[in-house]
Amino acid sequence: MANPDSEGQEQIDLCEYIFKRLVQLGLGSVHGVPGDYNLTILDYVKPAGLNWVGNANELNSGYASDGYGRIKGISAMVTSYGVGDLSAINAIGGAYGERAPLVHLVGTPPTAAQEAGACLHHSLGDGRLRIFADMNKFVTAAQANLTDVDKAPALVDATLKTCVLESRPVYIELPTNLVHAKVPAPTSPIDLSVPGYDEEHETKVASSIVEAIQKSKKPMIFVGGIAARFRVTEEINEFVRLTGIPTVTMTFGKSIVNESLPNYQGVYMGAIGDTVLKQQVDDADLVLDFGPMHSDVNTFGFTAVPKADVTITIDQYSAKFFGKSDTSGRAYLPKSFMAKLLKGIGATKLPEYPFNRGSTYPPHLLQNLKPSPNKERIEHDEFWLSMSNFLRSGDVVLVEAGTAIAGACSMVLPDNVVFINSGLWLSIGYTLPALQGVALARREQLKEGSKEAAGFSGRSILFIGDGSLQMSVQAISDIIRNKLDVTIIVINNDGYTVERYIHGFDQSYNDIQPWRNTQAPNLFGAIINDFDYPVETEQVRNWGELRSLLARPDVKKGKGLAIIEIFMDMKDAPLPLKNFAGFMANRNKTNGKS
Amino acid sequence: MANPDSEGQEQIDLCEYIFKRLVQLGLGSVHGVPGDYNLTILDYVKPAGLNWVGNANELNSGYASDGYGRIKGISAMVTSYGVGDLSAINAIGGAYGERAPLVHLVGTPPTAAQEAGACLHHSLGDGRLRIFADMNKFVTAAQANLTDVDKAPALVDATLKTCVLESRPVYIELPTNLVHAKVPAPTSPIDLSVPGYDEEHETKVASSIVEAIQKSKKPMIFVGGIAARFRVTEEINEFVRLTGIPTVTMTFGKSIVNESLPNYQGVYMGAIGDTVLKQQVDDADLVLDFGPMHSDVNTFGFTAVPKADVTITIDQYSAKFFGKSDTSGRAYLPKSFMAKLLKGIGATKLPEYPFNRGSTYPPHLLQNLKPSPNKERIEHDEFWLSMSNFLRSGDVVLVEAGTAIAGACSMVLPDNVVFINSGLWLSIGYTLPALQGVALARREQLKEGSKEAAGFSGRSILFIGDGSLQMSVQAISDIIRNKLDVTIIVINNDGYTVERYIHGFDQSYNDIQPWRNTQAPNLFGAIINDFDYPVETEQVRNWGELRSLLARPDVKKGKGLAIIEIFMDMKDAPLPLKNFAGFMANRNKTNGKS
Repeated sequence: MANPDSEGQEQIDLCEYIFKRLVQLGLGSVHGVPGDYNLTILDYVKPAGLNWVGNANELNSGYASDGYGRIKGISAMVTSYGVGDLSAINAIGGAYGERAPLVHLVGTPPTAAQEAGACLHHSLGDGRLRIFADMNKFVTAAQANLTDVDKAPALVDATLKTCVLESRPVYIELPTNLVHAKVPAPTSPIDLSVPGYDEEHETKVASSIVEAIQKSKKPMIFVGGIAARFRVTEEINEFVRLTGIPTVTMTFGKSIVNESLPNYQGVYMGAIGDTVLKQQVDDADLVLDFGPMHSDVNTFGFTAVPKADVTITIDQYSAKFFGKSDTSGRAYLPKSFMAKLLKGIGATKLPEYPFNRGSTYPPHLLQNLKPSPNKERIEHDEFWLSMSNFLRSGDVVLVEAGTAIAGACSMVLPDNVVFINSGLWLSIGYTLPALQGVALARREQLKEGSKEAAGFSGRSILFIGDGSLQMSVQAISDIIRNKLDVTIIVINNDGYTVERYIHGFDQSYNDIQPWRNTQAPNLFGAIINDFDYPVETEQVRNWGELRSLLARPDVKKGKGLAIIEIFMDMKDAPLPLKNFAGFMANRNKTNGKS
Repeated sequence: MANPDSEGQEQIDLCEYIFKRLVQLGLGSVHGVPGDYNLTILDYVKPAGLNWVGNANELNSGYASDGYGRIKGISAMVTSYGVGDLSAINAIGGAYGERAPLVHLVGTPPTAAQEAGACLHHSLGDGRLRIFADMNKFVTAAQANLTDVDKAPALVDATLKTCVLESRPVYIELPTNLVHAKVPAPTSPIDLSVPGYDEEHETKVASSIVEAIQKSKKPMIFVGGIAARFRVTEEINEFVRLTGIPTVTMTFGKSIVNESLPNYQGVYMGAIGDTVLKQQVDDADLVLDFGPMHSDVNTFGFTAVPKADVTITIDQYSAKFFGKSDTSGRAYLPKSFMAKLLKGIGATKLPEYPFNRGSTYPPHLLQNLKPSPNKERIEHDEFWLSMSNFLRSGDVVLVEAGTAIAGACSMVLPDNVVFINSGLWLSIGYTLPALQGVALARREQLKEGSKEAAGFSGRSILFIGDGSLQMSVQAISDIIRNKLDVTIIVINNDGYTVERYIHGFDQSYNDIQPWRNTQAPNLFGAIINDFDYPVETEQVRNWGELRSLLARPDVKKGKGLAIIEIFMDMKDAPLPLKNFAGFMANRNKTNGKS
């Protein structure tokens, strides 16, 4: 099995090779659940200098890896063949659609048993032992079945490269009998060169965009959530600042642009949002659209999609001018492309573009907020606006799909906040495990002195509804086990309120079993009075309780685990949700195309 | 959209049609989780006379449906497109492999949006809107995408027929815009005729088997778990009784044969079990193998598979004689086939077959048990044997994979116990939600006066390890919400002990976060002092505590929810586990075929 060591090259175990490469890519922790086909893989985690997270189940492991990958640019999860693999596949789908870099390493049965089509446990018993890999092909950007030791290192490298460059999940199968197989140790860093990169092309695209801006009278900048994957957030902000072009983000792009920039106009909600802003978009003669994600929900029923004939779409490695895709196969690199774009803009005198920020973005609402009396029940529209004051620069904020994101998209964010939500996949329950991954990734970045964590507040804050929390609640156990600093704000409104607004307002199927959510740390083994890892739970029923809680130094600090349960009325909802739910219900009923 | 009503036939909504058919097949409850693409489907649940379970997440919903289906012969689950669907797919795989009849009804986007390849939420955003159906094809026996209203009723019928006849999951997609489409109401019961049924053939197969028995000097009967799906348990017992042939079950077949029958010899464990029994099997000149499941674990590394040249495999609709499959396409029906077999045996004088029950089956161990002193810690081998005394006729007993099943396969069962475990899929966490489904199914059967629930003790009892419990713990919420009577016995041994025995005995990856398991009902909203639905939790650390607990009338009765947490040593394990784990570790390492 071992490769000939003809040139005296160091030989290492195949599994060691994989983890070595992952460490080179910046991995610090491995998520996953042990299973009999992956136990020997797990022997290599610690010796590689990696931390083992050990999740309570595989779906949570997948979601957590997704969150970790969005922060660190790489993540890895180990599951067992068949059952563990399939338990996680919903998370893999989300990572594919919303582009999170996730290496799913599966421990598979020994090759001889696979070739014999044996009736193995964790299979369907009918000899179809490759079906789990086949199912994963639909939701992963690359797959590697490491059955040939000679080819394994190159295959691992190519697969990891796809993961990083496409920021999407990949699937690696390591049969139990090859975990220890000898392969040459890597002697150079992994090749991450972008296929088709052409510097001349890069220069041309950048100058074409500068020219288009020069010709435009009414330009706009759109920033979508995929732009976060380009890892040029600083450059995008500089571009917005330098050009002074009126800028909006989509909900799934919120926080990429610092909201204090004077030309930032808020989240664009198309037909359900501000009509002045809608008119401005309709009148634009140029839209620079960074990393768009034009899903039905993120574009409020496709009403927030800029017109193709005035739009330059700026994707990770190529641009699309006015609806015409670039089929040249030539690519730019996000970093050097943005540098060229900034240089071009720096050498150009641009006019001041007029716009009416006041009508479209709520800081003035926040300033003029007349807070409700302390004894009054908390209502959504005021809640989300006022929670803006709790946030501070350097926070990571996660917001669950449903009622929470419908409200949180109106929050006014301090600069340098990372705001994570789902813009396409919308699998409820995603954000709680993702919070675990995010908090872990940030802690590692701080330790590593990473530039990206500079100014990190130490706080990872989640807003989640009571129904979503139930889906993946054992992620709180993973948070406690790994002593992660998180603040979980649970909106308890007696069930699936977002769905009530779509259909079946009073139907019992939109109810849930009422939980005592603040008892979760107790079940999940939190230690009482642990000075190193404080655990706090609070229930909040009116404005006064909320205000005094959020003013407490320990709550502000965000160290340890805090669960704050806020009770709201079942029938209350943020305005954008009320406006949008009707559209969704009607589309579903009337066979709308969009 | 509506069909022409030319013959004055009653027209009903397509969704109503589906539920009507399911009710005709014996369905009483629908499992699932609401989602925006399935809300209008859920409007039809109650009016159809069905109960909505409302699970906390979709994987648990799938597992629960599997358990429900194993008891009732049909089950149904509703999930939402993409995310809900994929969250449940691990459970669907298990139902496929171990043959549980489960109708997975998915609410899908409107047909026009699907045809347009729109960028819909819960999709990957790339227009590949059929991939979830494609993934399900690997793990379902039939699929129906109800986009053509005219063909929908026939397609629904054919799909449900496959579900029932094959006892396997099927997949039905109902687009939101066709939920209300009009179709003719069914006027006759659904066709469940078995393709290729041939009474003459049935007679011939039965008499061939009788002849083979007459010729045999050393016959044996094997009963595997798939035989439970034939729904002729009574007839199989009568066959064992009438013939007097020495009989064993596999672990995944335990309880199908009443263990008080004098010729029952226990669970056959091949090479790791009793050597006298192994010799008896090796010496047999005829093995009648009912519904086998020859997975690696269920056959202890394929050492418990009878020799093909002496084996007649009796499957649901056909038999295989001495390794030769029946390719005639002709089928028998389990019920009438067994009647013919019994008639043939009744007319035959068979000899008394000698065997040595004493060495192979533990009732004598139970009788001669010298119980450990009250203050001593509970150890596995004595625990499982002594728990036999807690069981009584009419119980349903579920046992989780891992340490629990390795011990429980040695329990001595009273007659008419249904024993449910996983023999192939072994997805840890399966049994807790399955318990919910099982308890619900039994309650319905009692209410319906079903013959199968006659003698039901009212108790559904689960044995599960602490690691497995963490996977799917929110099933306890579903149990409380539906006020189901269950007893959950949690073996707390600090992590994944079954995996420690396979590999990494002291490795931290086999640890879990220590939970306060008895706090679960508190988190999940159990009502304190509810007379109608009592909730009890107890921790047990030695024999004395266990004995006095199990003697308590309320614990014996099994009404409401009881969680009994039993603390055992991390390093203790049942003997069969110790014996088998080494085999598994070696197979994985050395590239064994089996």
